Amino acid sequence: MNYYAAPVRDLRFVLEELLAHRSLALPGFEEATPDLVEAVLEEAAKLAGDVWGPLNSVGDRQGAKRHTDGSVTTSEGFAAAYQAYVEGGWNGIGVSEALGGQNLPEVVASAVQEMLHGANMALGLCPMLTAGAIEALAHHGSEALKTTYLPKLVEGTWTGTMNLTEPQAGSDLSKVRTKAVPEGDYYRISGQKIYITWGEHDAAENIIHLVLARKPDAPEGNKGISLFLVPKFLVNADGSLGERNDVTCASIEHKLGIHGSPTCTLSFGENGGAIGYLVGEEGRGLNHMFTMMNEARHKVGIQGIGVAERACQHAFAYALDRTQGRSPKSRGGNECTISDHLDVRRMLLSMRARTDALRALALYCAGQLDLARHSESDTERQTAQACADVLIPIVKSFSTDQAVDIASMGIQVHGGMGYVEETGAAQLLRDARIAPIYEGTNGIQALDLAGRKLQRDGGAALSALIDEVQKTAETMRSEPSLAGMGSALAVGADDLRAAMQLVLEQGSDPETGPDAVQAYATPLLSLAGHVLCAWQMGNAALHATSALQKGSDEPFYRAKLCSANFVITQWLPAGRAQRAVIEAGMQCLNDFELTP
Amino acid sequence: MNYYAAPVRDLRFVLEELLAHRSLALPGFEEATPDLVEAVLEEAAKLAGDVWGPLNSVGDRQGAKRHTDGSVTTSEGFAAAYQAYVEGGWNGIGVSEALGGQNLPEVVASAVQEMLHGANMALGLCPMLTAGAIEALAHHGSEALKTTYLPKLVEGTWTGTMNLTEPQAGSDLSKVRTKAVPEGDYYRISGQKIYITWGEHDAAENIIHLVLARKPDAPEGNKGISLFLVPKFLVNADGSLGERNDVTCASIEHKLGIHGSPTCTLSFGENGGAIGYLVGEEGRGLNHMFTMMNEARHKVGIQGIGVAERACQHAFAYALDRTQGRSPKSRGGNECTISDHLDVRRMLLSMRARTDALRALALYCAGQLDLARHSESDTERQTAQACADVLIPIVKSFSTDQAVDIASMGIQVHGGMGYVEETGAAQLLRDARIAPIYEGTNGIQALDLAGRKLQRDGGAALSALIDEVQKTAETMRSEPSLAGMGSALAVGADDLRAAMQLVLEQGSDPETGPDAVQAYATPLLSLAGHVLCAWQMGNAALHATSALQKGSDEPFYRAKLCSANFVITQWLPAGRAQRAVIEAGMQCLNDFELTP
Repeated sequence: MNYYAAPVRDLRFVLEELLAHRSLALPGFEEATPDLVEAVLEEAAKLAGDVWGPLNSVGDRQGAKRHTDGSVTTSEGFAAAYQAYVEGGWNGIGVSEALGGQNLPEVVASAVQEMLHGANMALGLCPMLTAGAIEALAHHGSEALKTTYLPKLVEGTWTGTMNLTEPQAGSDLSKVRTKAVPEGDYYRISGQKIYITWGEHDAAENIIHLVLARKPDAPEGNKGISLFLVPKFLVNADGSLGERNDVTCASIEHKLGIHGSPTCTLSFGENGGAIGYLVGEEGRGLNHMFTMMNEARHKVGIQGIGVAERACQHAFAYALDRTQGRSPKSRGGNECTISDHLDVRRMLLSMRARTDALRALALYCAGQLDLARHSESDTERQTAQACADVLIPIVKSFSTDQAVDIASMGIQVHGGMGYVEETGAAQLLRDARIAPIYEGTNGIQALDLAGRKLQRDGGAALSALIDEVQKTAETMRSEPSLAGMGSALAVGADDLRAAMQLVLEQGSDPETGPDAVQAYATPLLSLAGHVLCAWQMGNAALHATSALQKGSDEPFYRAKLCSANFVITQWLPAGRAQRAVIEAGMQCLNDFELTP
Repeated sequence: MNYYAAPVRDLRFVLEELLAHRSLALPGFEEATPDLVEAVLEEAAKLAGDVWGPLNSVGDRQGAKRHTDGSVTTSEGFAAAYQAYVEGGWNGIGVSEALGGQNLPEVVASAVQEMLHGANMALGLCPMLTAGAIEALAHHGSEALKTTYLPKLVEGTWTGTMNLTEPQAGSDLSKVRTKAVPEGDYYRISGQKIYITWGEHDAAENIIHLVLARKPDAPEGNKGISLFLVPKFLVNADGSLGERNDVTCASIEHKLGIHGSPTCTLSFGENGGAIGYLVGEEGRGLNHMFTMMNEARHKVGIQGIGVAERACQHAFAYALDRTQGRSPKSRGGNECTISDHLDVRRMLLSMRARTDALRALALYCAGQLDLARHSESDTERQTAQACADVLIPIVKSFSTDQAVDIASMGIQVHGGMGYVEETGAAQLLRDARIAPIYEGTNGIQALDLAGRKLQRDGGAALSALIDEVQKTAETMRSEPSLAGMGSALAVGADDLRAAMQLVLEQGSDPETGPDAVQAYATPLLSLAGHVLCAWQMGNAALHATSALQKGSDEPFYRAKLCSANFVITQWLPAGRAQRAVIEAGMQCLNDFELTP
C-alpha cells in the first residue's frame, strides 16, 4: 500500500483559521486571494497525490544509478514527474514576480512543499536545493549571473545544488579546501565535495552548482571561503548550453533511505579545473550560504512534517482495516479493527496530534517570514525576522526528530507487517532518518538557538513567543471546556521561561558560558518545541471549540480537540521534564571520561 | 567499521557487584564458581568478538537466499560460525545437566546471550528460537519425544522454530487455522505459517518446528489449539535422519533489518500433510507455548541490550576519532574530536548510561528466574517468580524501545556518515527495529503488565519492587555524595506507586476496567522501566562510590557514577512525566474518531 492524500483540510485550517490568512493582507500579495490559495492547494494536492506519491516506493526500490561515464539515471518516472512539476509552474510559486515567480506567500509555498515531500521526499529534495540556489543568487549574485541563471532556475528547467561538505569539513565548514584559482573573469575550481544532493541526474537540462571554495591566497578559516557558481554545462552568450564543465559525479552513496535522491560525490577540476563564477563578495562565502541555509532549514522541518503525515495515513489506513482481537467495546462480540484497541489508538492519536502540532508551528514560522519580508512597518519586519530566527532551528530539529519517532511508531502500528519492506511503513523511517542530520545536524540547530539566537537579544524574541503562549493559555482558561488544558499550557510556558533564563544566565558567563550553551542546547530546544507545539494546539482547540459551538458538526473539529488534549495533557509533560534536565546541571557531562 | 568487543567489564560488575553472584549460591549450581563464570565470559567474548561479530555486516549485505526448490542458503560464514558455537558447547550453557546442558545460572546464560546478540543479532536468533523449543519440549513433551529430540536440540546440532503466526492470527492467536488430523500415533499437519524465524536454513542438519494447530473437531478459540512437533526430516527409530517431511519454505521476507536471519513463510502439508506429534495436552497449545514465550521475551530484551551496546561502541569509536570544530575546552587551540563537544557527549552518555541501566535490570530479572527455579524455599521461589513475571514485560518492551532510540542516536553521532550504509550504524537501527514487534508487540507486553500481571496480585509484586527502589534511595541519601540522586530516585518511586494504584483502581472497575488497562498500559510500563532502571543505577552508584572510597582508581567506576547521575537526574524526569499522562485520563483516546 502506498497511499498519500495531501492533508488539504488541515492545511486550510492552519492557513485560514490559525493564521487567519494574515499573509494575504500584506503588500505585494494583492493577487493572492483566499480563493486562489484554495485552488493552489487543491491543484498541488493532485500533483502530490496522483503524480509524485505513486513513485515514492519506486524510487526506494530502484534508487538512482550511476553509470561508468559518471552520468546518473534517476528512478523510473522521476524525470517525468519533475517535468510535470516544472510545467505546472510549481517551482516558482514562492518566488517574487520580479524574478519570474508566482509570488505567493511563504505560508502557501510551505503548504505546497509539505504535500510534495509527503508524497515523495526523495524527489522533493531536487527543487528544495534549487530554491536554495535561487535564494543565494538573488541575494548575492551579480546582474550578469542573475540574468543568465535565475530565469531557468526559477522555471525549474535547470536545477541547483549546494556544495558545502568535504570529508574533513562537515559541521565545521571553516575546513573547506576546495580551490578556486582566478583566470580572467572566472575561476578554475578543483576539489572534492561529498553528500551533494541531486548533484548529478537526468531530470533537467543543466545543473547549477553553488560551491564553497577558497582562493590560493585566501586566509585560513571562515574568512577565506568564497561562494562560486559552477554550471554542469557552460552557458553561451545567447543562453544556449555550451561545453560540459569539468565536474563529474565520482560516486553516489548507498544510503539508509531517500534512495530516489542521488547523493553524489562531485569531483571538480580533474581535467584542468571547472569554470566557476564568484557569487557575492570574496571571503563572504559562508555568510552568503547561510542566507539560504536559514530557509533551507525551515524547509527540512516542513519535509519532516510531510513524511510524518504520510506515516499517519499509512498507519491509520492499516489500523482501520486490520481486524485482530476484541476490544473492551466489542466484548463478547465480533473481532474489531485494531484501531479500537486503546493502546493502538494511543499511538494513532499521538502520531496525528504531533503531526498537526508541528505543521501549525512550521506554518506560523512561515507566516513570520512573510511578515519579515513584506510588512510595511520596519519594527514589525524586524520583530518577525527575530521571531523566525528563533523558530527556524526549532522547526528544523523538532519536526525532524518527531518525524523519525512518528515514522517508527507507524511501523509499530503495523506489527510484523511494518517490518516487511513491501508494506511501505519501513521506508518512511528510513527516509525520515536523514532529516535530523542534513542542513546542519539537530545538535547544530540547538546550538544556534541556545547560543547565537538566544544570547544576541538576551532572549527577547523567545520571551515574546512565551508571552503569546501565556495569552493563549489565559484565553483557554476563560473557556470552561478548555480551562484544564489552559492551565497545563501555562505551566509549560513557565517552565520554558525558567529554562531560558537559566541558559541565558549560565550561557553569558565568560568562563563556563560556552560549555553551558553546549550542555543545555538540546534539552532547551526540546522543551521549546513541546511548549510551542502545545501553544499551537491550544489555539487550534479554541478555534475548534468555537466552530463546534457555532453548530459545526464536522468530525474534523472534534478530532482536533482530541489532538489538542493529547498534545497538552499527555505529550507536553515529557517535554516539560527538560526543565529538570537543565536544572540538573552539566557536571556529569563534563566528568564523563569516554572509553571506547 | 564493524567493531564489537563484548562488555565483559560491565557484565562482571553486574554479576559480581550488583547481583553479588547470588545465583551461584543456589542449590544445583555448585560447579558454577566465580572463576568458572569469569572464564565463561572471557571465552564467550572471544566467540562473539572474533567469530560472530565480523559477520554482522556480511549478513546484512548478503541476507539469506531462498532457492527455487525451497531451500535457503544463509550468508557467507554463518553456518560455520554457528558450528563454532555448537562445538564450543554454548548452546546448552543455560540448560540443566539432566537434559545434557552445562547447567549454568540464567544470569550467566543471559550475559552470554547479550554478547552473541550484540555481535550478530541475526545469527543470535537461531539459537534463541532453539532455546524456546527446548523449553517447550522439556516441560510438555512426552518421554519419547524428549528422548528423540532434546539431546540434538540441546547440542544445537538441530535447531528449533516457533510456528505461531498466520496471516489472520498475529497478536490474537485464537484465530489459528492450521489443521492437525489424527492418523495413528501422529497427526497430519496442513496450513501456512508466516514470520517463522530461521524456518529454513543450511546451518544445521535438521529443524524441529513447534507448530500451533487445531484438530478438525476442536472448539473455536484458544481452547481448540494444540501444540505439535513437526521435524523437517523425520527421525528414524535409531535416531538417524529419515525422509523429508511435508513442510517447505514458500518464501522469505524482504525486511527492514536482520537480513541474515531467514524469516520464512512455511507451507505444511502441500503433499498430503506433514507428520507431526502432539506436544503436551490437546487444547493446551497456547498455554504450552506461553511457557516458553515468557523466557523468549526476556531474551528479546537482552537482544535489544546487545544491539544498544554495539551502537554505543560504534558511536564512541567514531566520536573519539572524528575531529571537527573546537570545543569550549580547546578555545583558540586545535581541533578537537567531536566527543569533546558537550552536546555530542550528551548523546554518548545517554547511550552508555541507558544501556548500562537496561543491562543491570535485565540481569536482575535473570537472577529472579534463577531464584524462582532453584531456591530451596517455596516462598522465595514464588516471590521470585512473581517478580520475574512483572519484570519480563518491562525488560522486553523497555529494553527494545530504548534500543531503537539508542541505535538512532548512534546514527546521529555519526552525522552524515551515519546515514551511509557502509558505516554500519544504520544497520543497527534497522536490526533493532524488529525487537519491539516480535515475541508479542510492546503494546501486548504493556497489556500483560497492566492487565494480567498487576491485576492478579493487586500489584503486590510490583509494590515489592518499589519498596526495593525506596530502600536504595534511602541508602543513597545517607551517602553525602549521592544524597541528591537518592532524593530524585525516591520521587520516581512515589510516582510509580501512585500510577500503579491508579491503574489498579481504574482497572478493576468491571465496566471501564478493560479500557483503563488498555489506555494506561504503555505509559505505566514506560514509567516502571524508567524507575527500575534508575534504581539499578542507584545501586551501581553505591557500589562505584564504595569502590572509589576504597581507593580504586579505575575509570570504570568514575564513568559509572556519571552514568548513574545521568539516568537519575537527566533521564528519569521524562519517565516520571508518564504519571501525569495516566492522571490525564483516557477521554481523548476514547473520543478520538479516526478518519483515514
